[in-house]
Amino acid sequence: MKSVKGNLLIAQSGGPTSVINASAYGAIKEFLSLGSGHKVYAGVYGIQGILEKRIIDIDTLNKNTIETLKYMPSSAFGSCRYKLKDYDENEEEYEKIINIFKKFNITYFLYIGGNDSMDTANKLSIYMNKIGYDANIIGVPKTIDNDLVETDHCPGFGSAAKYVTNIGIEIWSDINAYKKESIMIMEVMGRDAGWIAASTGILKSVIPDINQLIYLPEISFDKDKFLIDVEKAIKKNNKLLIVVSEGIKDENGEYINANKNEIDSFGHKQLGGAGRHLQNLIKENITKNVKLIELGVTQRCAIHCASKTDIEESEIVGRDSVKYVLAGYSGYMTALERSSNDKYNCVTKLVKLQDVCKRVKNVPLNWINEQKNSVKDAMIDYIQPLILGEINPFNENGLVKYTDINFFR
Amino acid sequence: MKSVKGNLLIAQSGGPTSVINASAYGAIKEFLSLGSGHKVYAGVYGIQGILEKRIIDIDTLNKNTIETLKYMPSSAFGSCRYKLKDYDENEEEYEKIINIFKKFNITYFLYIGGNDSMDTANKLSIYMNKIGYDANIIGVPKTIDNDLVETDHCPGFGSAAKYVTNIGIEIWSDINAYKKESIMIMEVMGRDAGWIAASTGILKSVIPDINQLIYLPEISFDKDKFLIDVEKAIKKNNKLLIVVSEGIKDENGEYINANKNEIDSFGHKQLGGAGRHLQNLIKENITKNVKLIELGVTQRCAIHCASKTDIEESEIVGRDSVKYVLAGYSGYMTALERSSNDKYNCVTKLVKLQDVCKRVKNVPLNWINEQKNSVKDAMIDYIQPLILGEINPFNENGLVKYTDINFFR
Repeated sequence: MKSVKGNLLIAQSGGPTSVINASAYGAIKEFLSLGSGHKVYAGVYGIQGILEKRIIDIDTLNKNTIETLKYMPSSAFGSCRYKLKDYDENEEEYEKIINIFKKFNITYFLYIGGNDSMDTANKLSIYMNKIGYDANIIGVPKTIDNDLVETDHCPGFGSAAKYVTNIGIEIWSDINAYKKESIMIMEVMGRDAGWIAASTGILKSVIPDINQLIYLPEISFDKDKFLIDVEKAIKKNNKLLIVVSEGIKDENGEYINANKNEIDSFGHKQLGGAGRHLQNLIKENITKNVKLIELGVTQRCAIHCASKTDIEESEIVGRDSVKYVLAGYSGYMTALERSSNDKYNCVTKLVKLQDVCKRVKNVPLNWINEQKNSVKDAMIDYIQPLILGEINPFNENGLVKYTDINFFR
Repeated sequence: MKSVKGNLLIAQSGGPTSVINASAYGAIKEFLSLGSGHKVYAGVYGIQGILEKRIIDIDTLNKNTIETLKYMPSSAFGSCRYKLKDYDENEEEYEKIINIFKKFNITYFLYIGGNDSMDTANKLSIYMNKIGYDANIIGVPKTIDNDLVETDHCPGFGSAAKYVTNIGIEIWSDINAYKKESIMIMEVMGRDAGWIAASTGILKSVIPDINQLIYLPEISFDKDKFLIDVEKAIKKNNKLLIVVSEGIKDENGEYINANKNEIDSFGHKQLGGAGRHLQNLIKENITKNVKLIELGVTQRCAIHCASKTDIEESEIVGRDSVKYVLAGYSGYMTALERSSNDKYNCVTKLVKLQDVCKRVKNVPLNWINEQKNSVKDAMIDYIQPLILGEINPFNENGLVKYTDINFFR
């Protein structure tokens, strides 16, 4: 490792997860463990806050408070949905960032986030290189959607999958309480890729006779085929669990029942309504005995049902990102590489940010069954190790440990 | 205790909970531990299944399977929403039941359920008494809504409250991720009483500066006051958590945004839409930055976040119900009596079924704050002991233990 040339800046971006703070924790602990005399700073509210000089010095935080980061949901240092424009469109922003880096003697920057955040990290890295400013930038992956390419999986996904699959088992038990027909639609997150919905394929490994249909954005949604699927399924068993990604699209690539007028500040269409649309289809064509549950933000913050594997990997990704950035790498993302499923082991590796950003990793089509309404064993083998292990997040009052998020800002 | 004169029948009714099977478990284990040579039967799908002679002999179940009952959500023996009519309206049904009792030599009957189920148990008990049939009937309370009178609280409520309060903490963390204004509405169950929503008052004991509003069915919903509450709250802090019972009503007692055409088979109006209504009010009058989460059935089946206290009490209520029914009591419900909050202890006592059925226990008005949008410390003191303790419901595969519900039917 080269000698430490300056201070480290970390920041968080995009949607929170249960474990994004575990990566920040890993990075902070790793850097401070070196005793280089240099500082760790955190940008408050991601790149947007950095542009507003909202920088805090980790040394000013209580040490016990830092320890709580490892098991704390949400983005402790604050997040944003803010994309840097290309530098030839708005060089002023880049200059602002350079000035802040200079002011705080920042020579290392870790940006923790998803696809759009990797794009920002990539642009910054290219700009720094172009103008010859000596700072190394590494992207740290985070997304419950699991849709970053060049990595086996993304920190955050395992915990979301663990929560959703467990809720799935519980709901299957619940809809079997009564004798009467009961269809439950569970809408889960997944804007572009169906990983979370696909993860519930693991239910059949514990409930071999489960009556379940899974619909993913990877497959164009066909209303007529859907109704045939449902009719066939409830003939077999009058209890049925339907899992659907919020991001399913029709043959023209239009979101199913998306509200086309609302977009978020990244310019993405605001989803919601895929599950409701399916419920209406069933009500109008098959039966009234169909309920809907939209799991919403609980998927990205349910620390009470987090995957221990996910938390530990998130911390390692944070720690290794510090090692990589100090070793002089820049313009990379710290990815996860799985050795095998049988004896699961994951290590980190570097992949180029330019190969990651603006691309989406979908559920492989050959992991989806022929009827396009469930997943094959390959998906189950993939997900099983990622949801392993539990933490004990509870205090003696029966509630999950809570740290005031303002302590970090 | 008198000598055991015949067999025990147990059955489950109404909405499932995470712990209704723990009561069945307690009853079965207690009766069999006596070694009387008499049998335990279970009615499949409650009184409706009993009328169809769907009776299973617990001896035919695998012993390990019985052990899984203690930590199994949903109604293992099947539930129903079926109310017995008065016997002068439909004596035939009562005669059917008597014939089944005779056929299986049933002299003890425990009916596990909520308000409507206590009514059924009461009617049966009165009828048996009238015709001089020697069977003792006891109601075993169960409802996440916590709205049975004459008992300190109801088995099932503690686990629902534990899940909802923990999700509340996690969602509060989540909505604080971004800098921008963020209002989250969390709709929880509670048709007639607001106990589940009120339980989230405990959030302020761990998040002293939480910005939270709570709306209960106990207080007529006033749209104008609601909008003033919200405007005032977001001036103080642009993050706001609003918790609302599905059963809030207007000044005329009409459900807010209820779909008046849909009723369930108990004749209750099908709710849903209170949270959506509040969201629309805020969108139309204050801000677009408002999201909704409807926790739905997860509240009654999330065994992964069950209260250990609740599970243990549910088992005790089942065990003590056997003791009471064998001692010759009939026409009673086994209630819970709390000694004190400081050193929480709960024991069972008997209360008359006729004093329980057709009544609703509401959140006391003097536990609600003056502004009618939150709860006082008395509510927090009440809820705290009920959510204490955790179980480990997970298998080594990272998923909650699952028993095929068909094993019990």
